[in-house]
This record gives sequence, structure tokens and C-alpha cells, in this order.
Amino acid sequence: ATSSFWSGPWRAGAPSSRWGHQAAMMTNERYSAVPSTDKEVDIINIKGIEEIGYLLNCLTPEETAQCRHGLYFQDGERRVDYVLTYQVKKPSSSRARRHSSRFTDNALTRSLRRTRPQARSAKPDPEPGPQETSADHHEDDKRFRREEFEGNLREMGLELEKDEDGKTPGVGFVKIHAPWNVLCREAEFMKLKMPTRKVSFTLYKINTFISKVTDPLHPNVEENRIENVKHLSHPFSREKQHLFDLSDRDSFFDSKTRSSIVFEVLKRTKCTKSKFSMVSISLCPAGITSLLGSGAYLAAYPLHDVITYLTLFQLLYEEWASYSVFYKYQPVGLIRKYFGEKIGLYFAWLGVYTQMLIPASLVGVFVFLYGCVTVDDDIPSMEICDSRRNITMCPLCDRVCSYWTLNSACGTARASHLFDNPATVFFSIFMALWAAFFMEHWKRRQMRLNYEWDLTGFEEEEDHPRAEYEFRVMQKSLKKEHKAQKVHTPGVGVRGGGVMNCHINVAVECCFQIGVTFAIVFGVILYRISTKAALHMSSNPTTRSNVRLTVKTTAAIINLVVILILDEVYGAVARWLTALEVPKTDKSFEERLIFKTFILKFVNAFTPIIYIAFFRGRLVGRPGSYLYVFESYRMEECAHGGCLMELCIQLSITMLGKQLIQNNLFEIGIPKLKKLIRYIKSKRSAFQEEEREKKLQRYETDFFLEPFAGLTPEYMEMIIQFGFVTLFVASFPLAPLFALLNNIIEIRLDAKKFVAELRRPVAARAKDIGIWYNILRGVAKIAVIVNAFVISFTSDFIPRLVYQYMFSPDGSMHGFVNHTLSYFNVSHFQNGTAPLEPEILGFSVDICRYKDYREPPWSPTPYEVSKQFWAVLAARLAFVIVFQNVVMLMSDVVDWIIPDIPKDISVQIHKEKILMMDLFMKEEQGKLQVLDNLTVDGEKENSSAHSPQLRPRAVSHTQSNSF
Amino acid sequence: ATSSFWSGPWRAGAPSSRWGHQAAMMTNERYSAVPSTDKEVDIINIKGIEEIGYLLNCLTPEETAQCRHGLYFQDGERRVDYVLTYQVKKPSSSRARRHSSRFTDNALTRSLRRTRPQARSAKPDPEPGPQETSADHHEDDKRFRREEFEGNLREMGLELEKDEDGKTPGVGFVKIHAPWNVLCREAEFMKLKMPTRKVSFTLYKINTFISKVTDPLHPNVEENRIENVKHLSHPFSREKQHLFDLSDRDSFFDSKTRSSIVFEVLKRTKCTKSKFSMVSISLCPAGITSLLGSGAYLAAYPLHDVITYLTLFQLLYEEWASYSVFYKYQPVGLIRKYFGEKIGLYFAWLGVYTQMLIPASLVGVFVFLYGCVTVDDDIPSMEICDSRRNITMCPLCDRVCSYWTLNSACGTARASHLFDNPATVFFSIFMALWAAFFMEHWKRRQMRLNYEWDLTGFEEEEDHPRAEYEFRVMQKSLKKEHKAQKVHTPGVGVRGGGVMNCHINVAVECCFQIGVTFAIVFGVILYRISTKAALHMSSNPTTRSNVRLTVKTTAAIINLVVILILDEVYGAVARWLTALEVPKTDKSFEERLIFKTFILKFVNAFTPIIYIAFFRGRLVGRPGSYLYVFESYRMEECAHGGCLMELCIQLSITMLGKQLIQNNLFEIGIPKLKKLIRYIKSKRSAFQEEEREKKLQRYETDFFLEPFAGLTPEYMEMIIQFGFVTLFVASFPLAPLFALLNNIIEIRLDAKKFVAELRRPVAARAKDIGIWYNILRGVAKIAVIVNAFVISFTSDFIPRLVYQYMFSPDGSMHGFVNHTLSYFNVSHFQNGTAPLEPEILGFSVDICRYKDYREPPWSPTPYEVSKQFWAVLAARLAFVIVFQNVVMLMSDVVDWIIPDIPKDISVQIHKEKILMMDLFMKEEQGKLQVLDNLTVDGEKENSSAHSPQLRPRAVSHTQSNSF
Repeated sequence: ATSSFWSGPWRAGAPSSRWGHQAAMMTNERYSAVPSTDKEVDIINIKGIEEIGYLLNCLTPEETAQCRHGLYFQDGERRVDYVLTYQVKKPSSSRARRHSSRFTDNALTRSLRRTRPQARSAKPDPEPGPQETSADHHEDDKRFRREEFEGNLREMGLELEKDEDGKTPGVGFVKIHAPWNVLCREAEFMKLKMPTRKVSFTLYKINTFISKVTDPLHPNVEENRIENVKHLSHPFSREKQHLFDLSDRDSFFDSKTRSSIVFEVLKRTKCTKSKFSMVSISLCPAGITSLLGSGAYLAAYPLHDVITYLTLFQLLYEEWASYSVFYKYQPVGLIRKYFGEKIGLYFAWLGVYTQMLIPASLVGVFVFLYGCVTVDDDIPSMEICDSRRNITMCPLCDRVCSYWTLNSACGTARASHLFDNPATVFFSIFMALWAAFFMEHWKRRQMRLNYEWDLTGFEEEEDHPRAEYEFRVMQKSLKKEHKAQKVHTPGVGVRGGGVMNCHINVAVECCFQIGVTFAIVFGVILYRISTKAALHMSSNPTTRSNVRLTVKTTAAIINLVVILILDEVYGAVARWLTALEVPKTDKSFEERLIFKTFILKFVNAFTPIIYIAFFRGRLVGRPGSYLYVFESYRMEECAHGGCLMELCIQLSITMLGKQLIQNNLFEIGIPKLKKLIRYIKSKRSAFQEEEREKKLQRYETDFFLEPFAGLTPEYMEMIIQFGFVTLFVASFPLAPLFALLNNIIEIRLDAKKFVAELRRPVAARAKDIGIWYNILRGVAKIAVIVNAFVISFTSDFIPRLVYQYMFSPDGSMHGFVNHTLSYFNVSHFQNGTAPLEPEILGFSVDICRYKDYREPPWSPTPYEVSKQFWAVLAARLAFVIVFQNVVMLMSDVVDWIIPDIPKDISVQIHKEKILMMDLFMKEEQGKLQVLDNLTVDGEKENSSAHSPQLRPRAVSHTQSNSF
Repeated sequence: ATSSFWSGPWRAGAPSSRWGHQAAMMTNERYSAVPSTDKEVDIINIKGIEEIGYLLNCLTPEETAQCRHGLYFQDGERRVDYVLTYQVKKPSSSRARRHSSRFTDNALTRSLRRTRPQARSAKPDPEPGPQETSADHHEDDKRFRREEFEGNLREMGLELEKDEDGKTPGVGFVKIHAPWNVLCREAEFMKLKMPTRKVSFTLYKINTFISKVTDPLHPNVEENRIENVKHLSHPFSREKQHLFDLSDRDSFFDSKTRSSIVFEVLKRTKCTKSKFSMVSISLCPAGITSLLGSGAYLAAYPLHDVITYLTLFQLLYEEWASYSVFYKYQPVGLIRKYFGEKIGLYFAWLGVYTQMLIPASLVGVFVFLYGCVTVDDDIPSMEICDSRRNITMCPLCDRVCSYWTLNSACGTARASHLFDNPATVFFSIFMALWAAFFMEHWKRRQMRLNYEWDLTGFEEEEDHPRAEYEFRVMQKSLKKEHKAQKVHTPGVGVRGGGVMNCHINVAVECCFQIGVTFAIVFGVILYRISTKAALHMSSNPTTRSNVRLTVKTTAAIINLVVILILDEVYGAVARWLTALEVPKTDKSFEERLIFKTFILKFVNAFTPIIYIAFFRGRLVGRPGSYLYVFESYRMEECAHGGCLMELCIQLSITMLGKQLIQNNLFEIGIPKLKKLIRYIKSKRSAFQEEEREKKLQRYETDFFLEPFAGLTPEYMEMIIQFGFVTLFVASFPLAPLFALLNNIIEIRLDAKKFVAELRRPVAARAKDIGIWYNILRGVAKIAVIVNAFVISFTSDFIPRLVYQYMFSPDGSMHGFVNHTLSYFNVSHFQNGTAPLEPEILGFSVDICRYKDYREPPWSPTPYEVSKQFWAVLAARLAFVIVFQNVVMLMSDVVDWIIPDIPKDISVQIHKEKILMMDLFMKEEQGKLQVLDNLTVDGEKENSSAHSPQLRPRAVSHTQSNSF
């Protein structure tokens, strides 16, 4: 009877499984025994979360014994591998049987009704009011689907235990245990690589000196010590059981593997039989995800494992999730062992990135120091500060501003030199190569981890289709079925106009969002212009002297706040847009979401900076014909010495602000605040004080932890930071240092979160960091171009070079400042724009100077751009081309020279393959020997062939020996 | 006894296999019976090749019966799957036993001696002279190794048959047959995916209209018709035999698979036991490759299969290797079926490339036609041709040349317009995107083929280490062993200074070769300059008028000849350099070789063209201060209208010449010539006429065919052509057309070669075209940059735009020619450079014009570059940046938008996975049912779990049922 589930499509209409039915009956009986009320659930939820602290207290070894509560089934034998929770409503006896009343005219339940005749025969009594009935039906529907699903799970061989009357009323728990044969079967299907008996000796050379020096940097974890022996691994197969060391069945599959196996079954198991299973579409589609989505279950999670892995958990807590070990490597092997490969890779990546930031920030600091040291040797800033050269500059705004002398910009000019010196050119080349090295280093590290974690040869599985997608396809095919009787192109059918429309919608929406960002940036620009103008007009002289500083600071802070707010908005927008697209699998959903979120957040974070770097001060016009926005505001100019200084300020405020606020405030502060609020609330609901005295079951504690929301936000934060580190590094060499300091905290913060504040995530296998690697590559590529433009257009590097080698009379920098300033005849001011106080400097001005390459008033073509302008422009552009192509070429060379697979790993893999081959050949030989013993007399003849007819029977000799 | 080989490392010193021993004895006895002489081999070789024609005659069905000769062992039952050939020397009876005399003091044979005591006991008699002895020993050594090897092959289960007295004296043949159990075993080890009984229906929509229209384009092959059913495939496993349809064992593994299985065994089998097999290093290293390398065997090849696949072979011959089907698609499935995936992929790629060339050449022709049509509307060339504007130009050479009027350059200017018009800008953008599309299209096609050919999930195996590499490692470790007794770091040890030195050597050598290329290009330039000067000086006016044409043509031809010669030289150099590096595996050897060859050939082919495009005419200097090479030759100028015309000529001559000469002369002509020579020779050696009358055995016919030399030359040729098509497409829009015409011939030419002129290659599995894809990407990337520079610097596109939008008084192109010409005062000529006949135009010249942007003589800074120059330069550079980045971005977008895996294929793969899963689950269910029948009474209790202790025993129930 139990075979009907998997043979569904071939034996349509067979009666439902006995298991499912029995389970449903059982639950119905239990239902009426639950004493809680409907309204309590919310309060309990909030109160229960208070118990988080319990988890942490539980970690000391002496309390372990108490912690075992709920880690096993009630028989104390079978481990809980997974937990499902659902909401329990207080049922009235009259409602208990009404669960199929609304399904009668619904295609969804056609097959259900067929399989549950007794449900149909018990027709509902029609007394209750319509609203109540609807809510009840909803609940009944959910319960019905749960029962169906749980029945199917039992049919798959899983063992379930229910607990509805724990210490957390309103919440029911289904504990799932996977028995040995299910584990074996699924491990075989999933092609899990398990360690075999056979060991190989790795060839790692243990350089005692280096290992002694770096010893304090390694976490104090046993695993790191004995690296030289590795068990060969082989995809698990029940037919090859003799390969594996199955002496201890309880620990052969560790808790991480067990939970991921159960999760695999949960994902695969449909809640009803499929009608279209030829093409993998079921009416109630893909397993647990859709049930969670529809609210039939509240949550599904594996338990934090504190039994067999007590030491592991403890070690993680002490050697990883603690600020006191900030200088140490992370125990990546342990993280993987507990959280699975995907999360292990994230932390490994974060570690590599942080480690790589050390040299980058060192060089960055050196570059900055070089700027500080050479500031007094810089001829242009000396010339600006030289009070003997009293160069009269044209006013910075219309009418209210007046002429000013260049040496009042002395401070800015000297500060600019800190970030605008030849060392920054070197530094941006360095950082481009650094990024390439980082990529390569990570690839190699990833390869090494793949080897160590037995992931070589593991293929990323095509994911199960998402529930929403299947629902869409189902709708389509149902519609088709109604129209004509053709139902045979469902997979293709969904790619019709609807999806195309979606794509267009999404593109339009994305553009709209980016448009919003641009509008906001423009708004901030307007704010700056207008505030500046207003403040300039103010009569208070101290206000006016503080104008620049005030405006800069407020504008930067406004920008920051806008960025932070939009960041949250864009996250939601991206999620909504991706949902519109209805991607087929969870993986493609995730990738699309990530890509969109990244684009929006990236544009959001960098638009103001790009404006300052490339547009500010370029669209000013010239004295006598300034460019006006809304015909009244003049565009902003940069301070003398280039916009680099302002770029640097904006960059540091955004970066520091984002990191401080998003990391510290959002990641530490807000959870703390929440806890406080909960604490206060729980004080009020003191009527349950006595319940809190009782120990909670383990699965209850875990239920009150935050669910794991994926690694996307963590990666995203780091990638945006990577953008700050690489994109404008030419203007802010200290960025890597700030990033480094942030990451040292970030690692431990994340670690704490994973160990103590989140439900244990299901261990997911992954060979690489997926789309993030491509995004990193993209950012690194863009960084090269952006840096090329920053150096050539934002900094004064190229004009200086051009002056020195083309225009300087003596080949030195003397006279550079004069050369960059054009002449303006004050009589050429447009009406009403001349300064009101023209003699503020103490003398009347005929000619003022402004920063541009234009012909002087006395040339035949006054105020036209000069030959110098074109020469400098050509030089700038040539620099961009050379820089971009040379640096990209160098990156490619780095990419090409460093092999992706470390030499020792490839040797090792090859060696293990040969060992494996030898093992199999030995086995073959063993079989042949058996055969030879049988045909020993035939052998003595001088024949060149073993008789081929005899062999095949001997093949399965060694199969069941070790079972 | 037979188990000793594979347990070598564990049971060192066990006696050698009985099989090996017996085989050696057998051969020794046979040896003396061979009647041929030492010297005959060469003659026979040459004569035998004459028999190629026989192969083709053999294809008609009525002759099939005769063709079966030699396709089976002498029992007529067992198929010949592979053939090894070796040279047979006439043995003297005294020599026959002397084969181990020189090994006594050699570490190599320590283990051999241990295993062959009887060989040692028969000590050599020391009569023969030293040279003779040495040669004999060499022969004996080879024979000895062959025997050892063949013994090991027998131990592996292969069946061998020797034939030393066939119709080709001097050559011995070892025919190898793989019996069923060996095939099964190896297929399992190689994880070959074989079709199962289970079929799935593909969802290909058969659009009847399109299929009807394209029907004549498809090859007339049955396979294309019935695509809708596909057998699911699964890695072969003897434990899952019930999955496969084994009813016909002879055809389950086809001949391609059989031969590749045997080849795998041949590669793996070492000729002696390994001492260090822990780390996979043997004293006589990797199997057949090293034996072939050392000359122990002459050749190793599978046979052309004309039995079961008679129809296939016939079909290939008719529907593929024939010029009459040039317009059809290739029967790629058949090619793969016969030659394996690697060669199948090459032809599929060639097909895709050729197909993609069709739109490119169409657009190219349109662009060319656009140039032809608009030539009369082109204002600058109209102005040049306008005889009323008599612009006097400065002389083109010193003293002998005189002033000339611009309208004499009318023809060139008009011709230039054909290639230098706005359409070419469009065309180069188009071609950049075309290249991106081509890549994507190929990726998708590859993916589709991977699916159709059951390669999904197949992992490229790490290759066996190359014999040379292992030899090196062995030397190292032996040396170490002698020094100290540590032998445990052999894999790492080889990466010492030696390899590093090699790398440096190789780099230096490559640079040197590229230097040679540059030197030769410079030589050709000098030739042109000096010839031109000499011809200019000639008094004959017709000579002088033909100067340009003569010089251009001869120079281009010299270039072409140099390129062709250097191509051959560089091939050899690259091979030599790669051998120096001692790469570890054949794959890395091949990749390094390909990379080096590509770099050298690429530089070789494109250096002269790059010179013309970017350097010619730029380093001329100006009238009055020309630039001189060796202080006597002025650098070349381009004709008026840019160098684009000359670039175009050079490009077309190189491309056409290379294709015509390399393809037609080398690929068709030389083999024909060789055949002729052989024919004449064989006439002379008529003493063997009677032997030729006899039918040759199949393996003999195949032996006389050319060995398969790999796909590298074929790919290389195509990639260089791809370079011509994409790199300078802005200057030569007809390149795709020429390439297309060439490829249509090329495909059928290659096909003929593979079917009729080469030994059958061993079928190699491959998922992709490997390094070639990366090289293609690289070329496409470089093409974008090169085209950007060609458009902006070589063509007049940018100066025209700049003139039109910046300097033109009325916004039209009128006056452009005048604007590009600077003024020169003839009184400023340097001494002795003024023309000898200044009044050749009929009037005395004060001011002549030259093409450059310089200040006129009357400006304050005469002859300095003008503002226009800088403006144009800036525009050119800006164009390069914009073009490069926009086109690269567009390529990336194309890359990103088009999914790598076609939708239907991914749906199909997913579907098949589910079907496979269902199959396995059904099987599981079957097992459970057996169990349920056993425990049927226990089921009736209301327990939530099946008893886990009972399950495992049921697992292996269904294993041997279908065997």
C-alpha cells in the first residue's frame, strides 16, 4: 500500500496512503486537548523571545545535561533533525470535521476528494456565520494540508513526533527524525561525498619556522594541528558501503548533514499528488517552501546542536564569535562543519578580504604620509600661499561676493596636496592590481577549501522550481486546458508575453528608481547652491566665513541620510520587482534580486560622489557668461586645487557614516533596543512568570530566535565597501584602512549573530560564492575606469605634467599656477552680476583671474578655449586610454599567471584519484581471484584470453560483505 | 597470481604475472620466423601509402565483405578495437636472448630483474662488435619493454593477437580486443554516460513551416528526423545494469567508445611496476605515450570502422565530406558518433562560425556598396578632384620629386571613400557586437550539444602526467635519493629553480622571436623606402609613374612570403619552447603550446598591418625638417585620403594570400605532390608488385594513412582568420565575405581529410573547445580597441566631424580639404632638399601645402602644431574612450542578456533529472514492498515509524535481477 505515492502518475486514482490518513486522525483527536486561547499567541511570541539568554547560559559544560531537553524524541533515542512549527487554534468540536466544505467546486481538490472519501461523506453543518466560517475554513485548510504533507513525509520514511502542549501555547511543533535507511538513500541521491576508510597523506610542507611565528594567529582549534592525514572521500552509495567506516552509525552523518538531508526531503515532498508530474508541476506545488509561504507552517529549522558537537559549539563561541580573538584567523573548518559550506565560504571570503586589506591599508597609509611629508615641497601650493604674488581672483558668486586674493585658498591647496600627488597615481595602479590579486587569491583559496571540504566534482543542482512559478505555470495550463484540450507545453508556455511584459516593467521600474536617485542628488546640489547663495547674502561676516564649511557638512550629512533611507527603500523595491518577474527557481530569484539590489544600492551610494568627482566645477561657464540653474543659481565651483579635496570629504563621510550607522546602529543597537522593549513588555505580562521557571525545550528556544535571512545583506554590505575601497581610491588612500578596521569588528559581529542570535541555518552546499564573484569582478573593472578618470580629470596630475613638459620655460613647476589661470576684463561682466563692493581688496580691479584655459581678453578670439586647453584635454584623454588598457592588461596578466588551482592541491587531487582507482582495481582483482579459483583448471592451457562468458556473474560478489 | 600487478606497492617483490611471461615467450619464438630485412621498412612504408585509394574504393556496399579482412581476430569473432604497430628487425638467433645485458647497473631495471629471473639467468654472449651490440641492445630493450607492456595489458583483461608476417614486412601488428567485462569495468571507471531504457520526449516544437523551408539545408541523415525521443542516460555502473538495454552486447558500446576505452587502458598501464606508486611516479612512466615516444611502438590507432557503421561511414562520406553538399548543415551528430566529441565540437564550431559569417559578410557587402554609391556625394573627394582648385602640394621626396597638384590624387581619394565613410564606423560597432553574439551563440550551441551528447555532468579529467615530466621528476627524486634518503616530496620538488629558469628562458625566447618579427617588418619598411627612393630617382617617366604601384605590390608580396615562412618557423619554435618547460600533463602541454604558437603567429600576421595602420605617415616630420632613417631615407607618407587605402590593400593581400596559399597549396597541393612522388617511386620498386595484388588487411591499410596530428592547426588557422575578420574590419568590410567563401571550402576539405586521409583518431571526450574559446574572447577584445584606433586615427572620420562641428563656417564639409592642409614657405627648405625642378607645374611656387595641422609660416610660432591639431587629437582620443567602453559594455550586455543555457535545454535537463529520480524512487519503493510483505502483521499497529532495524537488509534486493 505504501508504494502509491511515488507511483502517482502511473497509478492515478489509487487510494491515499494509510499513513497520511492515520496521522490526520491522530491529530484530530489531540486537537481538542489543547487548552490555549486564540489571542495568546502574539503575547507568548514576544515573551518567549526573552528566552534567548537561556541559549547562551546553556553553553557551559555543566549545564549541558539540562540542555538535552527536546533534542531527542520522547523515547530518548531518536535525534530531532528538523523542526516544523505551526499555529494552533483552539478548535471547537463542531468545526473539526468541516475541512473540505469549500473545496467542492475547486480543481485543486479533485484528486484529494477522490482519495479521502470519508471526508466527503461527513458534510458540514451550515450553522456558523459567514465570516467565522471563512476564517475557520482557512485554518482547516491549512491543517488539512499539513496532515497531507506529514503523511507524505512518513511515507518517505521520515519519523515524526508532535508536540502541541509545550510551554509555548499556541504553537505546535513537529519534530522530524531521519532514520538510518532514509539518510543512506538520500545521501546516495544527493551524491554526498563521504569520507572513506582510506586515508592519504597530504604533502603540505610544514615549515616549522613559519608555523611557529604564525601560531598565535591561528585559532586554538585542534583541527588545524593534524592536517596531514585526510580521508579520501567518495560519493556515498549503499552498494559500496564497504568503502566507508560505518562502525558508528550515529556519527557517520553529522547533524549538519542530517538536517540538510531532511530539508531536501521536505523540499521535494509535495503535499498532494501531481496531475502533471510528467513535467514536474503539481497542483499544490513544491513542498515545504509553499507551505511556509501560505502560512500552513510558521517556521522550519534544524536545531542548534549542543550534544555531540558540544565542543564544536563551545569552540566556535570561544575561538570565533569573540572580540578577544580579533587578530586570529577564523576556524573556517569548524564553521563549515556547523553551518555548512555556503556560510563557511562567506566567512572564508570575508577573512580573505580582510586579510588582503592589510597590505592595501599599509600602502594607503604610506601614500598619505608621503603626501604629508612632501606638502612643503609642492611648488604650486607654495606659489598659491606666497603672499608676495597677489593674484586677484574673480568673485565666486554674483553681486554679493567680491574679488579675492589667491593666497586665501592656501589652506585648501595644501590640504589638496595630501590626496593629489604622484603617489596617488601609483596607489590607484596598485589598488587595481591588488583587486586582481585579491580575486586570484580568493579563487585559489576557494579551490583549496573545495578540496578540503570534498566539494570537487560536486555539481550545483538545478534548484527546485519556486512555488510562485509553479503556481503561475499551473494557472496557465489550467486556462489552456479549459480552452482546448492541449496541455503539453507548460514549461514553455509561461515564457509568453506575460514574462516579456514583466521584463519591460522591471527595466522601466529600475530606470525610474535610478531616476529618483538622480533627482535626489540634483536636489542636494540645489540645496547646496541655494544655501550657499543665501548664506553669502547674509550680512553677518562670521556666517559668511563659515559658509563653505557649513554647506559642505550639512550637504554631506543630508546625502548620507538620503543614502541610508533609500538603501532600505531600494531593498524593498528590488524584492518587489523580482517577485514581479516570477523567476523559475530560488537560485535565479536570488540572483536577480541580488543583481537589482546591487545596481540600485550602488547607484545610490555612488551618485553624489560621481557628481563631485566629474561634474562639479566643470559646468560653471566663465566670468561674464556663467551657467545658471533655473536662471538664478550659478553652478558650484570647486575650491582652488581641484575638487579632489571635496571628493575626499564626501567619500570619507559617506563611507564612515554608512559603516558606523549601518553596522553599529542597525546591527547592534536595534536588536538591543528590541530586547529592551520586549523585556518591559514581559514584565507587564507577569501572569506567566511561573511558566518561565520551567525549562523550555530546545526546539522552543530555537523557535524564538531570529530566522536566518540569507547571506545577501552581509555580502551586499561588503561589496559596497569594496566599491569604496577600489572605486575612488585615487582620491582617498585611507579607504582601505577604514574598511580594515570595520571588517575586524564585522567578522566577530557576524559570528556572534550566527552563533547566538539566529536559528541554525540549514547547511547548504556551495562550491563558490556565486554571483558575488562576478559582481566583484565588475566593480574591479569599473574601478579601473573610474580611477583613470579621477586621476586625469579630477586631480591636477595631468595639467602639471603637461605644463612641466610642454609649456614650462625651464622644465620646472614654477609658474604653473599662473598658467592655469585665465584673464578676465571686469568691464565684460554681464549686467547686474558685477560685485557690489569692487574695492574690498583695497584697490580697484581691472583684470581678475579665474581657473580655466581660455584666451585672454586682448586676443583676437577673447574668452575662447585656448590651445593649452586642448593640449591638456588630449593629454588627459590619452592618460585615460593608457591607464585603462595598461592596468586592465596587467590585471589580465595577473589573472593568467597565477594558476587557479594551487599546485599542491592539484597534485593532491590527482594522487587521490589514483589511490581511488587503485582501490577499485584491487577490488576488481579480488573478484577475478574468486573467478580464478573457480576456473583454475582452464587457466593452465596456453590461451590468450580469459573466457569472457564467465566473468559477469562475479561482479556483485563483494557487495554485501560489510553490511 | 594475477592480482600482483595492481597490488604492487603493497606486495612489493611479488613474482611477475604469468600472462606477461607467457606472452614474452611466445613472441620470442615467433620472432625468428619473420623473413623481412632491416632496410626494407622505409621502402615499404612509402609503397604502402599508395594503398590509400583502396580505402575509398572499399566504401561501396558490395565490397564490404572483402573489407572485413583484419577487422576481427583470426577466430572471426572478436573485434579489433585497437592496433599497435612496431618495427620488426630480422633477429639472429644469437641475439634473441640478450635483451637485459645492459640493465645490470641501472636503477631503472632493478625491479624488472627481480620479476624476471629467467631473463637474468640467460646471460648474453659477448661476441658482437660494440656498435652492433649497441643497436641490437636498443632493439632488444624495445622488444623487452613491449613484452612487459603487453603482458600487463593481458593482465588488465585485454585480449591481444599478434601479426608479424602480414603483407607489410618489417612491421608487426598487435591487435587488441576488449572483452565485455573489461568494457563494463572501464566504462564504470570512466563514468561513461550510457543511454538507459528510459526515454523522455523532448519538447522541441516542430514548426512545420520553418522545417519545410530549411529542409534542403539539412544533411540527408536519418538522425535529424526523429529528434523527439531521447534515451535518458546515466553513468554506466555494473550494479545498475538493469537500467540499461543490454540485449545486444555487441552494439551497446559502439566502436568509438570501445576504442577510447582501450586507449584509456593503454594510457594507464605502466610497462613496469612502480616503486613510488604512492605518489604515482613509476620508473618507466606513463603507458603507451612513452612507449610511442621511445620508439618501442611505431603507432597506435583504432581502425576505421566499416562494418556495423558501414552506413554511418558511407553517410559521412556522402553527406559531409563532399563539395556537392556545401550549402547544407553538417551532420554533427554523425561526426561525433564516428570521431568522438572533441572533433565533433571542432566541426560544430566551424559550422557555427561559418554560419555567423553569412550576416557579417552581407552587412559588409552593403557597407562596401554604400561606399560605392556615395562616392560621388563625398565633398572632400569632390574638392580634391575639382581641377579649378589647384592646390600646390609640397614634394613627396627630397630633390628628385617636385611640387604636385592635389587633383592628381583624385583617384586615391575616391577609392579611399569606399572604405572610409560613416558606414564603416557602424560596421565596426556591428562587428564587435557580432563577435559577442557569436561567442554567446556558440556557448548555447555547445550547451545544446553537451545535452544531446550526454556530456552534462562530465568532468574533464586531469590528464595523465606526460612521460617527459615523469622522467624529470624521477631524475630529481633519484638524485635526492642518492643524496639523502628522503624521497617524500617528488611532486613539489620539480618546481624548483629549474622550472623557473625555463620560464625565464621561454619568455626571453618569445621576446626574441617577436623581436625578429619586428626586425623583419622594419626591413620591409626599409625596402619600401629605399626602392621608392631609387625608383623615384630613375629617369624613366613610366617607371616613375608606376612607382607607387610597383613598390606597394612587391612590398606586400614580400610581407606575405615572410609571414608564410615565419609561420612555419614559429610553429617549430613554439614546440621547442614548450618542450623546454616540461609541462606536467598533455593538456597543459597542449595549452601552453597553443598559447605560444598563437602569440607568435598572431604577431607575425598582424605586425605589418599594424605598422601601416598606426605608424606609417605619422613619423614623417614636416617640410623643412623631415625625419630621416639612417640619415638618408625619409619616412613614408600615406597617399592623400589617409592610410586606410593602403591598409586595405595590405590586409586583402595578406588575408587572401594566406588563405589561398596555406589552404589550397599546403593542404591540397602538397599532399597531391607527395602522392605523385610516391607513385613514381613505387613504379621503380616494382619487385613488390605481386604483393600489392593481394588484399591488405584493414589494420595495414590504416597504418599507411597519415596519423592524426591534433586539431591545433585547424583551430589556429581559423582563429587567425577570425583576427582578420574582426581586427581591422573598419578598414576592410569585405573581410567577412572572403572568410565565408574560404570556410565553405575549408569545411569540406577538412571533412575529406578526416574521412579518407587520416588514421581514425581516438575518440576524445570534451565539453568545450578549451583554450580556443579564451583566445577568441581575447581576439574579440583586442578587436574593439584596434577598431577604435583605426576609426579615430587611421580614417578621416574624426577630423571631418571636428571640422564640421567646430571649424566649418557653414556647418558643411566644404573647405575641409583646405582646412587639413598647412602652409609651407618654400624658402624654408633645408639645404639640398629643395626640388631640382621647382617649375614643373609651369609656375614658380612660393607656398606649398602639406597635410598636417600646423601654424602657417606667418604666425608668431611658425610650423608649430596648431590648436586644431590638439582639438582633433582630443576628439580622436575621446572617441577611442567612448567607442571602447561603449562597445565593451554592449558586448557585456549581450553576454549577460543571452542565457548561456538555452531555455528548452534547461527545462529538458531538469525534467530528465526528475524522471531519473522517479525511477530510483520507484526502485526504492519496490524494495520497501518486499520488506512490507515480510512485516505485514506489524503494520497493522498504529506506530508512527517503520522499524529502522529491519530496513537496511532490503537494500541490495534488486541488484542482480536483470543480469
